[in-house]
Amino acid sequence: MQVGFIGLGHMGAGMAANLLRAAHEVTVFNRSADKRRPLLELGARAAATVADACTEETVITMLADDAALRQVALAEGGIVSTLRAGGTHVSMSTVSVALTRELTAAHEHARQRLIAAPVFGRPEMAAAGKLFIVAAGAAEALRKCQPLFEAMGQRTFPFGAEPAAASLVKLTGNFLIAATIETLGEALALVGKAGIDPAGFVELMTSTLFPAPAYRTYGTLIVERKFQPAGFAAPLGQKDVRLLLAAAEALHVSMPVASLVNDRLHRLIAQGGEKLDWSAISQLAAEDAGLRRTGGS
Amino acid sequence: MQVGFIGLGHMGAGMAANLLRAAHEVTVFNRSADKRRPLLELGARAAATVADACTEETVITMLADDAALRQVALAEGGIVSTLRAGGTHVSMSTVSVALTRELTAAHEHARQRLIAAPVFGRPEMAAAGKLFIVAAGAAEALRKCQPLFEAMGQRTFPFGAEPAAASLVKLTGNFLIAATIETLGEALALVGKAGIDPAGFVELMTSTLFPAPAYRTYGTLIVERKFQPAGFAAPLGQKDVRLLLAAAEALHVSMPVASLVNDRLHRLIAQGGEKLDWSAISQLAAEDAGLRRTGGS
Amino acid sequence: MQVGFIGLGHMGAGMAANLLRAAHEVTVFNRSADKRRPLLELGARAAATVADACTEETVITMLADDAALRQVALAEGGIVSTLRAGGTHVSMSTVSVALTRELTAAHEHARQRLIAAPVFGRPEMAAAGKLFIVAAGAAEALRKCQPLFEAMGQRTFPFGAEPAAASLVKLTGNFLIAATIETLGEALALVGKAGIDPAGFVELMTSTLFPAPAYRTYGTLIVERKFQPAGFAAPLGQKDVRLLLAAAEALHVSMPVASLVNDRLHRLIAQGGEKLDWSAISQLAAEDAGLRRTGGS
Amino acid sequence: MQVGFIGLGHMGAGMAANLLRAAHEVTVFNRSADKRRPLLELGARAAATVADACTEETVITMLADDAALRQVALAEGGIVSTLRAGGTHVSMSTVSVALTRELTAAHEHARQRLIAAPVFGRPEMAAAGKLFIVAAGAAEALRKCQPLFEAMGQRTFPFGAEPAAASLVKLTGNFLIAATIETLGEALALVGKAGIDPAGFVELMTSTLFPAPAYRTYGTLIVERKFQPAGFAAPLGQKDVRLLLAAAEALHVSMPVASLVNDRLHRLIAQGGEKLDWSAISQLAAEDAGLRRTGGS
Repeated sequence: MQVGFIGLGHMGAGMAANLLRAAHEVTVFNRSADKRRPLLELGARAAATVADACTEETVITMLADDAALRQVALAEGGIVSTLRAGGTHVSMSTVSVALTRELTAAHEHARQRLIAAPVFGRPEMAAAGKLFIVAAGAAEALRKCQPLFEAMGQRTFPFGAEPAAASLVKLTGNFLIAATIETLGEALALVGKAGIDPAGFVELMTSTLFPAPAYRTYGTLIVERKFQPAGFAAPLGQKDVRLLLAAAEALHVSMPVASLVNDRLHRLIAQGGEKLDWSAISQLAAEDAGLRRTGGS
Repeated sequence: MQVGFIGLGHMGAGMAANLLRAAHEVTVFNRSADKRRPLLELGARAAATVADACTEETVITMLADDAALRQVALAEGGIVSTLRAGGTHVSMSTVSVALTRELTAAHEHARQRLIAAPVFGRPEMAAAGKLFIVAAGAAEALRKCQPLFEAMGQRTFPFGAEPAAASLVKLTGNFLIAATIETLGEALALVGKAGIDPAGFVELMTSTLFPAPAYRTYGTLIVERKFQPAGFAAPLGQKDVRLLLAAAEALHVSMPVASLVNDRLHRLIAQGGEKLDWSAISQLAAEDAGLRRTGGS
Repeated sequence: MQVGFIGLGHMGAGMAANLLRAAHEVTVFNRSADKRRPLLELGARAAATVADACTEETVITMLADDAALRQVALAEGGIVSTLRAGGTHVSMSTVSVALTRELTAAHEHARQRLIAAPVFGRPEMAAAGKLFIVAAGAAEALRKCQPLFEAMGQRTFPFGAEPAAASLVKLTGNFLIAATIETLGEALALVGKAGIDPAGFVELMTSTLFPAPAYRTYGTLIVERKFQPAGFAAPLGQKDVRLLLAAAEALHVSMPVASLVNDRLHRLIAQGGEKLDWSAISQLAAEDAGLRRTGGS
Repeated sequence: MQVGFIGLGHMGAGMAANLLRAAHEVTVFNRSADKRRPLLELGARAAATVADACTEETVITMLADDAALRQVALAEGGIVSTLRAGGTHVSMSTVSVALTRELTAAHEHARQRLIAAPVFGRPEMAAAGKLFIVAAGAAEALRKCQPLFEAMGQRTFPFGAEPAAASLVKLTGNFLIAATIETLGEALALVGKAGIDPAGFVELMTSTLFPAPAYRTYGTLIVERKFQPAGFAAPLGQKDVRLLLAAAEALHVSMPVASLVNDRLHRLIAQGGEKLDWSAISQLAAEDAGLRRTGGS
């Protein structure tokens, strides 16, 4: 397929590369031009502007946050104002439910279609084409995009015709991870203060009831207290939890664990931990137990 | 080995049967005598009293709670007063850290040894010999008991020489499960109120970041709202969370998620849910979101 | 003094009347014109537009929320674009810290001055000229406005030169009230379930350690469960707590009681209580204790 | 009246002195004998044992905690075993609901009567005869004790015939204070980080909606960060909150603010603050906001 790709950060670069490897024709755009080079070597065409990346029927965006996506999609010369009628915008960033709703309406008004398709997976998984893709939008458009998803991910999970659903599902998934970090932090503060080997506890739990990547990855990070360099920095984690809470509040849904995790992330940042991985909130329970200070302060 | 076995409930019955199948000689005791019959058919000998089950070097207990274990072990005619010097009491119940400490001292004073070896696993796993065993106590005693553990479980996780450590690890593991239930409850209240298919969300999460028995089992229970008959009734869950909090408070460790889960379980019970599975606390977030009342009230 | 007054709701009507009684010359504006009549009878002049109310040196606003104030102050034909250079806008609404900051900058750019002067007190207190006024802005402008404040309130509390400080102080004061409601709700759920007379408990506390209007007013409301008609409806309370949390999050300040109260208010609204007084969140602890359902659902 | 008085600590010494000043005949007992001297100078008789203080119809206890009261009342040679049939034990300590229930039964069994009459007030108030007394027990016994209460307090609040009610009311009152401390701590962390004068904020609130001793006393302590010497040390505060939560859990009443305050107190103690006043938990919100460390660690 012929496709535009906007946003060549840690995630987007790998995703675009996999599209090229799967023989799709990709026109790439990134605000800082140097990020394009490796893609050009793989056969991509360079777009000089957002509009240049919107000349085909389909354009993919993979951007840092609401502000970046809003600028690329809704500003003058952006996707909505330049994509052809009938064209499809595949929005793969983790953004607010409200923005996805706003984009849905804007594209509809311009007779275009929006697919929201945020992903689970770290940069290594993006590079390996092993992402999990959560996709929502018009069924026919989803079907057409399937070859693209197959090039970038190991499995696609459809969530109906309403793009906002995919954004909410992605944010809710991140909440499950944040809650896992907090829970492990409390558990390890307790066993640690009792003089029990934390690594043994994590080994036990991940060998029995919790043999899951989320527990293995974060259990190890917490036991080793390896919060730098940040895989996912605390302010980014806090932003996602805030987007989740905003979506929940709009529906009047109370989520006390999410509120707690939000408080923890603000505390971590206020105490000097903004460069740490968001899993450093696990150390706050240890600190409250009198065990230690986190490395970031 | 020759071994006494006290406590033939849902868990103990399967465990004793597996000892018999592995050719150990087992003398069983249970307060209500009719529970012994299936074991006798497998070759067990019946003990008329606790003391009768303590004639060998080793006696195993698998009882409902602190009160039952205290009665069997510390009352007149109980294990401590009847087991031979040098004998070993293998305490496999989920009980308080404080009681395990008290038992450790009492056995030491009587020149006996205590091994705490609580288990993870439901009755089916007990029947299948697939339990996970968390064991702590004197190294040599642990080694001697290994054939027993192998008959009852699929893997034994050692946690050092202090029996209380095993009790704390078990309670902390249960806390991880309780936190998982609460977190899933909040997440599913949100996606449910947003009109998203909860089963699809659970399928997504357990296929990607959380492919773990705890998430699969409880995710399914919550989606199907199948809280009766209770696999693990709310008052039992509340009791375990309280034992965890008691251990945490003794060490001045603050665990806000544990406090929240404790509050949830009390609320469930106060609102008429004492016969429901403890995973019914997941419905409280849904109820708070205006979605529904739990089936128990 | 000659002064414009915009916003003749439950609070503003009484405040403007008191200015007239104190012999100030008041030009009033309200979106729905019928609210002006009582004021005209007291000698006010009617303004046909916002701009008409901005012809004097000073204009006061007392509006429902951020959106209303934003419209009146920042839209075309609004205060910023029509007030004379050197004029003063006295903003007495309870609004977000962010909007007060934005207004401060807009007025400064237009060479005008902003005073933020939100108030504590119910409509009866506004009518009686007994409000407590929290005022912040340039010292000289505050001094000039003092006769106005004296006509409307019983005491003015200065909080420095930065208008945003007054908005934050007002929101934080409302948080203290919300926390009082929640705390009383939990306490009364406990004594109520124990079979103790709640009115006696409130009488005890307000006669001894807590002889304060906030405890007397809300203690009585809660004991009598008189949540309708709402003195301050749940959605308004929730909005203020959200504005508080937004200000706190901007500074990375974690406020767990505020998070809890926010969750409670969302729950009350989700369960059908949007017409109830915000103090109806006190019933949620009672409901959780199995005592009763709030009247609103 | 002729009365025994057991427990001459900070509170009891002043209370017994006021009984003597009101011309009651008081026989005093205290574990450490030197505390009796000032009372003897005021005309008290000294008792050599608990039993010696139980020779009259009425005996008052004012002890530190459950353990002390249990020892004095229930041990061999204690009140229950030595007080005459028809005699009255006036228990004025702050103790658990469970112990008051146990004492009620024990006295009933011995044909004696129990009145629970815990007090609100600091040592200065005890010395000045200005305590607030919360009294519950048989109506006739309460009536007989009224002259004693009048000598020690400024007002007596009756709470029915069940002594345990008075214990619960006292603990719940302490919870209101603890919640006030936490709430003020969060509020002052926010205004403090925003650069607003905390003393001005406390002055505002205690002049308007919260002109109450609890807010004035603790508002000042928090603003001045004067947590040493402790008026009420953190471990004592934690003990009372734990007794409250135990009573609440026994009734399946969830009290999230109480759980939070309990977590805060444990954290304060774990971080080295056991010698600080319990109001030092107010500093934890400030610490979480990145403002400072509490003086105790």
